[in-house]
Amino acid sequence: MKKLSVGIDIGGTRTKIGIVDADGNVCANAIIAMAAYPRESDYPAYVDKLCSEIQRLLALQEEDYEVVGIGMGAPMANYNNCTIDNPGNLWTPDNVSEQHSRIFPIAKDILARYENEPKLRGTKIVVTNDANAAAIGEMVYGGAKGMKNFVVVTLGTGVGGGIVLNGGLINGHRGFGGELGHIVVQHEGRQCGCGLRGCIEPYASATGIVRTVTNWLNDTDEPSILRNIDPEKIESKDISDAALAGDAMALRAYEYTGELLGKCLANILPILDPEAIFITGGLAKAGNLILAPTEKAMRESLLRIYGDVKLSLSQINDDNAAVRGASALVW
Amino acid sequence: MKKLSVGIDIGGTRTKIGIVDADGNVCANAIIAMAAYPRESDYPAYVDKLCSEIQRLLALQEEDYEVVGIGMGAPMANYNNCTIDNPGNLWTPDNVSEQHSRIFPIAKDILARYENEPKLRGTKIVVTNDANAAAIGEMVYGGAKGMKNFVVVTLGTGVGGGIVLNGGLINGHRGFGGELGHIVVQHEGRQCGCGLRGCIEPYASATGIVRTVTNWLNDTDEPSILRNIDPEKIESKDISDAALAGDAMALRAYEYTGELLGKCLANILPILDPEAIFITGGLAKAGNLILAPTEKAMRESLLRIYGDVKLSLSQINDDNAAVRGASALVW
Repeated sequence: MKKLSVGIDIGGTRTKIGIVDADGNVCANAIIAMAAYPRESDYPAYVDKLCSEIQRLLALQEEDYEVVGIGMGAPMANYNNCTIDNPGNLWTPDNVSEQHSRIFPIAKDILARYENEPKLRGTKIVVTNDANAAAIGEMVYGGAKGMKNFVVVTLGTGVGGGIVLNGGLINGHRGFGGELGHIVVQHEGRQCGCGLRGCIEPYASATGIVRTVTNWLNDTDEPSILRNIDPEKIESKDISDAALAGDAMALRAYEYTGELLGKCLANILPILDPEAIFITGGLAKAGNLILAPTEKAMRESLLRIYGDVKLSLSQINDDNAAVRGASALVW
Repeated sequence: MKKLSVGIDIGGTRTKIGIVDADGNVCANAIIAMAAYPRESDYPAYVDKLCSEIQRLLALQEEDYEVVGIGMGAPMANYNNCTIDNPGNLWTPDNVSEQHSRIFPIAKDILARYENEPKLRGTKIVVTNDANAAAIGEMVYGGAKGMKNFVVVTLGTGVGGGIVLNGGLINGHRGFGGELGHIVVQHEGRQCGCGLRGCIEPYASATGIVRTVTNWLNDTDEPSILRNIDPEKIESKDISDAALAGDAMALRAYEYTGELLGKCLANILPILDPEAIFITGGLAKAGNLILAPTEKAMRESLLRIYGDVKLSLSQINDDNAAVRGASALVW
């Protein structure tokens, strides 16, 4: 009987679902737009939709199959408890003025819906942060094949990290290891969503570089082709387009971002001593625009004994990387 | 037959050797003054002395015994290669103007001397940095009993770290994981022995706090009982004595040091997510003088999800802690 796993990648804008075989091939996939489930009260309907989509994809399989488990990557995922804890951009409070703890027991809620499904009843569910899922993907399918000690840094809406040491994922005592976005790099720096100031996240994320450029556009008269875009609507893709067109401000934004990121990465080397660091996520799509200044700053700031550390873009290039990484959690 | 291990703690001023039984009892011990072996050319004589002292201590045993192995903690120890690589304060170049790589293959050199010793021929030798040895000691005999994720920070001549995650020591790809002393905390800060500037080591070590006080004594006219001591001869013990006597400058030196150290520790939490951090070494002997400001700064700077992290002094109080920790490496 064919063995299949389900990979789920929950992001701020969409959930990707894939049915993945033992070789990492995606046999079927689907997307759920998160805009349909923005609030905390939408969460039960979201889980219903997620469960029915998984069943729909499995029903498409022609061969008989066995489900090995469901692997899920999500922001603020708590590996130890299989929950998603206070995610900044998911299922936000119905009343925004109301601050309370929001713990979503997603594994338990999925299992409850599958109680009467023979193929899915009691299936193994692994929940981990999206960067951990990316790290597993990099190890199984990407540039970290054969490596025992490496780090994947996701530069998306936020900044996350997946750390593999001695061949295993680092989850930490509370299930919150590898939250690299909240390393403070600037004393009294930018406000971060986590409540601290000066974390790397509000600088070296896709949203961070937009914030950098928007600040400069507001605070200076420097000419830039980015002034042709409504400042409220600038996206990181616009900045890479401008940089590729030679726009000085856009190029400087990558240098500024890369310098902060590179110093931050140099500072994790003495702690973790990784063989390699991979960067991925929306900001990393700018390729060498962000890689080159990050590498320069990292090399200038690192302790010599770590001099042979490799820094590169993720070597997983397809759109299903996160889904495949999540699915690999259950094998 | 009684099983024994040999624990060796190599420090800048002395090497401690202990014969340790399976329960962690030190059956016999000895000290080698490093002042007798200061230069690179003294290293072979040092190994001779180390080997003969181990044999002398074993000969004192009344019961018949089996040697399980030799565990060694040393600065700049390379766990992967069982060598000591370019130690700043050990076996320095005979000609100081001559800069070259100094790799001391200490495990190999010990084994070569034991080729014809039936009890020691081919014995297992584990070489790790002194902070890793301290971490193992804390796990086996101290406050980290039963913990799977914790950090020990040694505040001695330098600053080191021993990291345990998922129940195992983190050695890293090159054998240089946990070198916490070289986390940069001050942009363009103090020159560190490693070549970088602004590492935590030249601030939060026993020598670092002396440097802080000496700078203040030189740069200001502030009264302090530390002015009664030859500025060249001030030691960290003098500063804790002055602080306990209420000296304002000495007290402020601990606050300044603790603030930098506490922020540095807060910044490793999102990476490692430890259950607890233990501090040990010469500076930690000041007890609450250094612990209180470190804890205050760490608590003020940490991300809320790590709020229950414990910070404490090492719970191993005897002088043989490092030797017992080193010996525990081979069990």
